[in-house]
Amino acid sequence: MEEEVDVLVSEVGPRDGLQSIKRVMPTEVKHRWIKALAAAGLREIEVGSFVSPKLLPQMADAEAVVCEAIKIPRLKVLALVPNLKGAERAIAAGAPKLTLPVSASREHSLKNINMTPEQAIAQVAQLRALCDSLPAGQRPGIEVGISTAFGCTLEGPVSEDWVIEMAVMLANNGADSIGLSDTTGYANPAQVRRLFTRLFAEIGDKAGGAHLHNTRGQGLANVVAALEAGVTTFDASQGGLGGCPYAPGATGNIVTEDLVFLLESMGLRTGVDLDKLIAARSLIAEGLPGEPIYGFVPDAGLPNGFVYAGGRAAA
Amino acid sequence: MEEEVDVLVSEVGPRDGLQSIKRVMPTEVKHRWIKALAAAGLREIEVGSFVSPKLLPQMADAEAVVCEAIKIPRLKVLALVPNLKGAERAIAAGAPKLTLPVSASREHSLKNINMTPEQAIAQVAQLRALCDSLPAGQRPGIEVGISTAFGCTLEGPVSEDWVIEMAVMLANNGADSIGLSDTTGYANPAQVRRLFTRLFAEIGDKAGGAHLHNTRGQGLANVVAALEAGVTTFDASQGGLGGCPYAPGATGNIVTEDLVFLLESMGLRTGVDLDKLIAARSLIAEGLPGEPIYGFVPDAGLPNGFVYAGGRAAA
Repeated sequence: MEEEVDVLVSEVGPRDGLQSIKRVMPTEVKHRWIKALAAAGLREIEVGSFVSPKLLPQMADAEAVVCEAIKIPRLKVLALVPNLKGAERAIAAGAPKLTLPVSASREHSLKNINMTPEQAIAQVAQLRALCDSLPAGQRPGIEVGISTAFGCTLEGPVSEDWVIEMAVMLANNGADSIGLSDTTGYANPAQVRRLFTRLFAEIGDKAGGAHLHNTRGQGLANVVAALEAGVTTFDASQGGLGGCPYAPGATGNIVTEDLVFLLESMGLRTGVDLDKLIAARSLIAEGLPGEPIYGFVPDAGLPNGFVYAGGRAAA
Repeated sequence: MEEEVDVLVSEVGPRDGLQSIKRVMPTEVKHRWIKALAAAGLREIEVGSFVSPKLLPQMADAEAVVCEAIKIPRLKVLALVPNLKGAERAIAAGAPKLTLPVSASREHSLKNINMTPEQAIAQVAQLRALCDSLPAGQRPGIEVGISTAFGCTLEGPVSEDWVIEMAVMLANNGADSIGLSDTTGYANPAQVRRLFTRLFAEIGDKAGGAHLHNTRGQGLANVVAALEAGVTTFDASQGGLGGCPYAPGATGNIVTEDLVFLLESMGLRTGVDLDKLIAARSLIAEGLPGEPIYGFVPDAGLPNGFVYAGGRAAA
């Protein structure tokens, strides 16, 4: 994490957000949207997915988007890769950090990436070997997100012991960090606190961030619990775009604007300028006219007399 | 609090919700709505406000609503009273518990009840005397909510020391319980934890509940913080109805449906049956056709395999 930031907000709108919308945002607008998000102070952006363009035409321009995004100074560029083939494409495009979803739910794993959880875990070792075969300085970081870690629309409850067991196997197989994803909006604060506490206890500094959805309105409540467990990285999506096309009923990441407001109002520095962040919403409207976008803070505005570190006035 | 309930959810929709909507819900529908809410398991409902019918015609039937509501077995009926005159009307109607708003913000206090905070605090002593003059067994409980306790749309930040000082004066003046209200949706979890912790330290078992609004999407995040500080009573409004007509920009209490889901999913028993609660939304649609109502859980449904104490299956 960079200096002067207490919590890293990792923007996933250009990947998780856009892949859930059938229409395709023009590549040129993606470039400008990502630049605007970085200019608002976001330090990390997941810019695309190297999945088959046949499955997700919205992500067919992932190479071009990565190539443009890595030119932005001080921005950590993430690319989602569903498998080794995707990883090879992402590495060729110059992605400095790869994120691989591994689902705790067997059914979700099969539907989402056509592999069992065990196969997906084994694949991380192959990805580690692939990255290690690259010249030093060109090796991307490997982040794994355990999806459906808090429950699954297909299978229902997911064993917490199994999630932690998976995290240990993933760490042993060479993942640099392992985060937990509430892909389906099933998580509650008690569960979030419990699972992240166990994750830190088991894999220490390989414990990654929280990827939370707001399907049942519990997203920011879960952030509060995760903060208490020691989580310092949170995924979020501008305008609450996002979801998972293979998890029916699971809609919408937590809203970046509302998350940044939460953190800054608690005195946790994100480095984000809320005014510039809210202004960047216009790029979604430009690239996907008429698409509904969400967020309470953009609607209500900042409180009268609100002072925060990232923006209009220093605390 | 009754047996087998860990957290008391106090429904304020029929008061805070309806007073913020210009149209008037027919009295007969109010009766059926309140009955449906009680039948869903809600133990306490704020059913109306004894404010001048000229100011709030939506509340002109407060007497009739209280008279009907107090017939419901095991329901604690609350009535809001802005002043002594309102209290006399509420007592005559048989309200067993009165709630009086006292604003921490001078400007908000003047606009809302046409008194300074000091005058409002002094009035609590008069209300205490009035109640004590009644025959034993007919004395209503006196609850005070300190409104704008976390900030004010008119004044901006509000002094935390002043809020705690007010709570002590209110306790000394005879209030049975003193809660804190985020009338304007300004609160953050760090502030909520801090202020309620101080409130418990200063006035002990006279510390009351949290009345939170979801104006900036932070409502349930603030609930998590309040729970940690020891709060066991939360106001909420079915469908997120509500706001304050004198606090511009302040819209919507936290949604009862989403709050009950939060608490039950954390293993905290509310006594509420979520299916029956969600079904009660139809009364809002009947009494106020076309009125927008909110809530993530009613839209998304309960998670696959969700088991909880209050409803469909015992944990």
